[in-house]
Amino acid sequence: MSRTVISGGLVITANEELEAEVLIEGERVVALAARGSEVAGGWREGAARVIDATDRYVLPGGVDGHTHLDFPFGGTFSADTFETGTRAAAWGGTTTIVDFAVQSRGHALREGLDAWHAKAEGNCAVDYGFHMILSEVTDGTLKEMDGLVEEGVTSFKLFMAYPGVFYSDDGQILRAMQRGADNGGLIMMHAENGIAIDVLAEQAVAAGRTDPRYHGEVRRVLLEAEATHRAIQLSRVAGCPLYVVHVSAAEAVAELAAARDLGLPVFGETCPQYLFLSLDNLAEPDFGGAKYVCSTPLRPSEHQASLWRGLRTNDLQVVSTDHCPFCFTGQKELGRGDFRKIPNGMPGIEHRMDLLHQAVVEGHISRRRWVDLACATPARMFGLAGRKGTLAPGADADVVIYDPRAEQVLSADTHHMNVDYSAYEGKRITGAVRTVLSRGRVIIDDGRYTGSAGDGRYLPRATCQYLD
Amino acid sequence: MSRTVISGGLVITANEELEAEVLIEGERVVALAARGSEVAGGWREGAARVIDATDRYVLPGGVDGHTHLDFPFGGTFSADTFETGTRAAAWGGTTTIVDFAVQSRGHALREGLDAWHAKAEGNCAVDYGFHMILSEVTDGTLKEMDGLVEEGVTSFKLFMAYPGVFYSDDGQILRAMQRGADNGGLIMMHAENGIAIDVLAEQAVAAGRTDPRYHGEVRRVLLEAEATHRAIQLSRVAGCPLYVVHVSAAEAVAELAAARDLGLPVFGETCPQYLFLSLDNLAEPDFGGAKYVCSTPLRPSEHQASLWRGLRTNDLQVVSTDHCPFCFTGQKELGRGDFRKIPNGMPGIEHRMDLLHQAVVEGHISRRRWVDLACATPARMFGLAGRKGTLAPGADADVVIYDPRAEQVLSADTHHMNVDYSAYEGKRITGAVRTVLSRGRVIIDDGRYTGSAGDGRYLPRATCQYLD
Amino acid sequence: MSRTVISGGLVITANEELEAEVLIEGERVVALAARGSEVAGGWREGAARVIDATDRYVLPGGVDGHTHLDFPFGGTFSADTFETGTRAAAWGGTTTIVDFAVQSRGHALREGLDAWHAKAEGNCAVDYGFHMILSEVTDGTLKEMDGLVEEGVTSFKLFMAYPGVFYSDDGQILRAMQRGADNGGLIMMHAENGIAIDVLAEQAVAAGRTDPRYHGEVRRVLLEAEATHRAIQLSRVAGCPLYVVHVSAAEAVAELAAARDLGLPVFGETCPQYLFLSLDNLAEPDFGGAKYVCSTPLRPSEHQASLWRGLRTNDLQVVSTDHCPFCFTGQKELGRGDFRKIPNGMPGIEHRMDLLHQAVVEGHISRRRWVDLACATPARMFGLAGRKGTLAPGADADVVIYDPRAEQVLSADTHHMNVDYSAYEGKRITGAVRTVLSRGRVIIDDGRYTGSAGDGRYLPRATCQYLD
Amino acid sequence: MSRTVISGGLVITANEELEAEVLIEGERVVALAARGSEVAGGWREGAARVIDATDRYVLPGGVDGHTHLDFPFGGTFSADTFETGTRAAAWGGTTTIVDFAVQSRGHALREGLDAWHAKAEGNCAVDYGFHMILSEVTDGTLKEMDGLVEEGVTSFKLFMAYPGVFYSDDGQILRAMQRGADNGGLIMMHAENGIAIDVLAEQAVAAGRTDPRYHGEVRRVLLEAEATHRAIQLSRVAGCPLYVVHVSAAEAVAELAAARDLGLPVFGETCPQYLFLSLDNLAEPDFGGAKYVCSTPLRPSEHQASLWRGLRTNDLQVVSTDHCPFCFTGQKELGRGDFRKIPNGMPGIEHRMDLLHQAVVEGHISRRRWVDLACATPARMFGLAGRKGTLAPGADADVVIYDPRAEQVLSADTHHMNVDYSAYEGKRITGAVRTVLSRGRVIIDDGRYTGSAGDGRYLPRATCQYLD
Repeated sequence: MSRTVISGGLVITANEELEAEVLIEGERVVALAARGSEVAGGWREGAARVIDATDRYVLPGGVDGHTHLDFPFGGTFSADTFETGTRAAAWGGTTTIVDFAVQSRGHALREGLDAWHAKAEGNCAVDYGFHMILSEVTDGTLKEMDGLVEEGVTSFKLFMAYPGVFYSDDGQILRAMQRGADNGGLIMMHAENGIAIDVLAEQAVAAGRTDPRYHGEVRRVLLEAEATHRAIQLSRVAGCPLYVVHVSAAEAVAELAAARDLGLPVFGETCPQYLFLSLDNLAEPDFGGAKYVCSTPLRPSEHQASLWRGLRTNDLQVVSTDHCPFCFTGQKELGRGDFRKIPNGMPGIEHRMDLLHQAVVEGHISRRRWVDLACATPARMFGLAGRKGTLAPGADADVVIYDPRAEQVLSADTHHMNVDYSAYEGKRITGAVRTVLSRGRVIIDDGRYTGSAGDGRYLPRATCQYLD
Repeated sequence: MSRTVISGGLVITANEELEAEVLIEGERVVALAARGSEVAGGWREGAARVIDATDRYVLPGGVDGHTHLDFPFGGTFSADTFETGTRAAAWGGTTTIVDFAVQSRGHALREGLDAWHAKAEGNCAVDYGFHMILSEVTDGTLKEMDGLVEEGVTSFKLFMAYPGVFYSDDGQILRAMQRGADNGGLIMMHAENGIAIDVLAEQAVAAGRTDPRYHGEVRRVLLEAEATHRAIQLSRVAGCPLYVVHVSAAEAVAELAAARDLGLPVFGETCPQYLFLSLDNLAEPDFGGAKYVCSTPLRPSEHQASLWRGLRTNDLQVVSTDHCPFCFTGQKELGRGDFRKIPNGMPGIEHRMDLLHQAVVEGHISRRRWVDLACATPARMFGLAGRKGTLAPGADADVVIYDPRAEQVLSADTHHMNVDYSAYEGKRITGAVRTVLSRGRVIIDDGRYTGSAGDGRYLPRATCQYLD
Repeated sequence: MSRTVISGGLVITANEELEAEVLIEGERVVALAARGSEVAGGWREGAARVIDATDRYVLPGGVDGHTHLDFPFGGTFSADTFETGTRAAAWGGTTTIVDFAVQSRGHALREGLDAWHAKAEGNCAVDYGFHMILSEVTDGTLKEMDGLVEEGVTSFKLFMAYPGVFYSDDGQILRAMQRGADNGGLIMMHAENGIAIDVLAEQAVAAGRTDPRYHGEVRRVLLEAEATHRAIQLSRVAGCPLYVVHVSAAEAVAELAAARDLGLPVFGETCPQYLFLSLDNLAEPDFGGAKYVCSTPLRPSEHQASLWRGLRTNDLQVVSTDHCPFCFTGQKELGRGDFRKIPNGMPGIEHRMDLLHQAVVEGHISRRRWVDLACATPARMFGLAGRKGTLAPGADADVVIYDPRAEQVLSADTHHMNVDYSAYEGKRITGAVRTVLSRGRVIIDDGRYTGSAGDGRYLPRATCQYLD
Repeated sequence: MSRTVISGGLVITANEELEAEVLIEGERVVALAARGSEVAGGWREGAARVIDATDRYVLPGGVDGHTHLDFPFGGTFSADTFETGTRAAAWGGTTTIVDFAVQSRGHALREGLDAWHAKAEGNCAVDYGFHMILSEVTDGTLKEMDGLVEEGVTSFKLFMAYPGVFYSDDGQILRAMQRGADNGGLIMMHAENGIAIDVLAEQAVAAGRTDPRYHGEVRRVLLEAEATHRAIQLSRVAGCPLYVVHVSAAEAVAELAAARDLGLPVFGETCPQYLFLSLDNLAEPDFGGAKYVCSTPLRPSEHQASLWRGLRTNDLQVVSTDHCPFCFTGQKELGRGDFRKIPNGMPGIEHRMDLLHQAVVEGHISRRRWVDLACATPARMFGLAGRKGTLAPGADADVVIYDPRAEQVLSADTHHMNVDYSAYEGKRITGAVRTVLSRGRVIIDDGRYTGSAGDGRYLPRATCQYLD
């Protein structure tokens, strides 16, 4: 079997920092050895490739647990296909994504899942799995959940927002949670009180407050906190774990922290946009705020401290991107004159590893926590422990060689996402991805993309392993 | 003007205990004087009546802020009419009630209010006012709220329970709260997540768990706490005060306490049934538990300590009865085989003052707090301060002469409510109402009812005065 | 007996606002009557004096539960004697003080109490009682506590600050608390961790940080919160109520609020200086900050919101002055070059009622709460309920006629305290005391002092009545 | 270099479970390889020893961060010497201990540390490091702290208990914490309010309550919680991390959880005795309770749930033994008639790994958390990350081969500790240590002790790495 050795780097996992050599046989990491040991000395012999990682970090490939590629929203589709989106992921050091397949109302889960398989198959640069969005909770879809769990779609997203589109009422949520408690499927929740928000949004527009910043204002912090609390209580009634997506408000973090103090199996994810951007961006002039319209919305910058603290205290466990890009021209512009019509979503799949390294540089988190939040925990949360998110014997050889001293500037001119703006235009980052391996193949080779569409394979997933 | 003097008693108000003589001119208390003072000495001269209250308490008449007389529920009507119900109130030392007028879906508030005026007028033994139940929140009913506030119906009840009947969704609640913030109307909330409860209730019945105790089990504590939290958050968004009715769960008290620690204008009421009865009663054999079916339900007895503590710490401010009696025979029996069909409600209008005095005897609350919870605060909360709930110069001469050493046994054989059972059958109480005055007239005269239907007048109310 | 009638005013007590006439016979209020009632009509006849209170408030005289007159501290004495201090109190509408008698180390409580009686007797303009400062907790002083409680000195102050002077260690505190649990004596606590503060103070001075503002900085907020928490826990172990004096930090309020949520009998007092002044004052140039040196210290202004909220939510129950004035010249100046040598204390006995009325004007508290915090609750807390702090039949006729529309400017030029500066120099206040009665005698008569030294009598006090 | 291969086992670390082969060269683990990989296949060749771990766990050796060998207390010495104690540790799968060197009052830290080196050197079966107990905080001992940190004694224990013996006051604690903030030394705290406890203990004995169970009763839960809170606040003032030893009360866990919610660097340790034993043991007849006298004391069993929850939520991070054995005969008996004279301490060094495996079996914690609490985190907390507590390339080859299906019964008849009783006499355990390696040498070989006194080396330690 073909052997690759990664030599000279600092191997960083969620738990260790090791001066170690990494040996890959075929698609798997098969061994790590202490630098300078006799055994490591023998590995270069007969290796097909030796990658020099001197002065660099050797990381497990990133796992992005929340993406929306080719996703229908507000009459349009997110701008990245599985081909462009996963390629951008690879450029950014992410080698696994879990994307959201969507059930259309009136149709079976199966139908939606098949459609998403069709979108992805043969097009991906990196490995991928699927969560399932339940647009309707019925006896039929509940029964289908069992089958999906068995075939490796082991997480189900529900919405307390978007009435009339994805919204489920509390009875439907409870029933889905009960099913999850039975079949092991993890319930993921968009926690905003959409019923109340729609009242405020309508009032705002009626009063002529139509600019993008009102998107942020009507989606009140208290209504995220409220829905988070409600989802937690419903999960207690059902006796199931709960994963709250894209947490943005300090008060929502407080609800999660309170739940965790009680020992409840409640998890929270946040995204780089909530850590680095704020309500100020939504107020950018000339409709520029539309670039930053996503839900939950960006918050006043004073919320960021709570999010960082939550990431450190493990009240938040995962950083994903919620990548859902829409071009400013032609897509975001649909909402001129009515912020409710701006497609919700932001690009970000390419920058997560870098932005979190920036957080390491700025002292928000440790290096190990960086890998934990971006690789190890999302893998474990979504049933990929052992294969993804770690560099251990037996794991898939998804590896990132990271230069912690490189300097780069984020820009739409240089990014690889299929979207006409960057949410971080001009932002300076210390650190850069140099080389990326996906199951042993080099797909980014020190600044060149060497992979191809179709390299990425579908990942059936086990049920949540975070509590194991 | 005709003068009455009440002499020799211990006058107890929410704030003071006074060895004082009370002078009534016509319908009003006009003066209090220190016992033995010169001025008091002169009052007996020319008095039409001198009531000897030696060794007795002289209390303001009770104010019961939550009754349902002649109330339609589940295809039947509560068993007490305004005539029988207010007479029983008088027997129990309650001289003011605020009953709930009901809007029927598809009809105007006005129509419901007129109907309730018709039920009450000319029939009441004691004074009465009305809250309004909003069964539908529409542009029309919102506009009507303004007019009702102006004419003295200054509080509006919404339900997070009973989908399809009284239930309002969070958007409707928010809109009503916003209106209340504008017009001063107080929003009262039945805080239980009825959508989730209905799922659990249906599952219970489908599984053959049809007995009354399952009524208590499916209406989960967490679902009361959840709704309480949600109502609080919505009231913060709307910027209005909130009054949560019939709080029964420790976890709901905790939500109120947390809100009050933040300084929010959030209030809570509990009822004697939650303080003295428990889930054990719901499990009484031979369908006997049906007697105790009300919502929120009776809770395991360990919740009582939290309620008592809340009453002491002022996290709960009011004790009302939620009097809504249905006879066991013919009414409660509608739910044999399906607890969902048991009419929700319990009798209690007659026993509130006595049960709370029992709480004084048992050391749960002080005498002043007894009067505060049962008289002063409900009056102030519902816009009757100065007139009701106090014994002060200028107040209506609603007075109770209470014998704190009397012994009585509660029983359907002796009570005056029009219902065929007592929820407290056989319970021994220390203390008894001896004499009751309503606006200066003696309506209970040491064990005889001397009033008549129609004595009670309608009370237009000011807006909530609790925060003044 | 000589009769006085106060006519035409709005009588405000902690619980009511009444358009009522007040009748005084001799030293007591004997009756209140509704304005315009027949009975009130008859009172003017034969009255020795009728005071017109039209457009004015009629309040119970203020009760200041925390004063230090003629108090030894840091080698000097507070600048107000019982004569000057109680006269200033009268000017400010305060008709009762409870001052702190001091046990000297090595001497009996009795000795200290006798000394304070000697200081006060025959010199006071208004009535006075004593708390006792325990400088040493020994078998002897513990035994003495019982006797003092019996003779009406029913509260005992301990210090967690001032090691070597007033400081008691946790074992001594616990023993005193146990004794209080037995004999009903209320334990009052200066809650700051003085042991830790002294380390920080010494370090500050050693580092050349000697200005008054460092007094505020070394007495850390966390060290007030810590001591508050500790005092609460010790009181739980002892099973006694606890009264925390001069609470100034938001974090200390939070500790009290948490205790009260548990239903514990824990009380807190704050003072006007913490509500209206801040750390900025301590930083006034040219040693001017020394004027504001007191302990607990003034805090950054953002703490004020918590104090106001605590006053509204009843997590703080009393506003006293902690009046302990030292002249700037010759006294405060002792601490030039070393803030530790600045005598701790500020003048304020004259301004409490006015500053709290200003809080009413500014919307922080209601009128009734004003009277509650300044009159009714301190009276009840310190065993004077029924006599002081209220206007009810039987109470001492301590009455303030207050003009709510007057405008005044506070200044050392016009105040009556014996101190050479005002902590509120130039502050504009809406409202002013016009007339003050002490036990029926007019001592301030619309701007003239008509009392005399010796009018004030000693008040033996009952034990704490707040929980009755 | 001599090679050992451990083959066929499930390698469990704090973060991973791997079907992997472990390669040891000399004293270090040098490589792990996936079972069945080509590279692993080659390792057996030339290996000096191949250990078959089929059906067994392969764990890092345990790290016990809290032992007291040959420790003076109450006029006697703990019964295990470094020779007997470390041998018992080895039997129990613990290959590293950190013991407490003691400063004697009036003597330098250096003197105490030298004495402990002398006790340990040449006598230990496993590797060992030292914490330093500060019995006096003076300018001298503070200066010595810097030097000790530099030479690898990087943690310092202070006592809020034991006045007159180890007790430091809050000022001394603050100064030591400030020094720790500067030099990186970790402050460890015995958090009980010993001043208050001594008052209660004296009262108990004076009242004839002399039995061992009163040891548990006077050391009140609230006084542990209080001291924990105080230590946290002092650490905030000093700006240093804090490690609270032997947490036993639910209320103390709550204080730690609250601190961690704030993001504070506060850590907590508990011990098996608090997880498996209770106040009931202290009440065993015939003075039998003396066997269980340790401080903090055993608590009512309802506290255990909080401890387990804290271990799961990471509000507690470490399980150590606080091994401090005294024989019942001749030592514990010193306290007959006065529980205060019972030497404080319990045996346990041998059973920690087994009892925590039992917790895995009973579902309290996961296998990875077992290794985390018992090996990885104590190593990282005390500056041994990379060397101890993990099985990773480069780590010391301290390895335990654990049979998860073995059954054993704990008993003084079979244990290896030098003490005449077992605190767990008769307790059945599933799981047993089979083979133990210390730096590559087999010291327990499937039931035989093959090591010798002096094998264990002194471990100079880095500063706390938990926050890296």
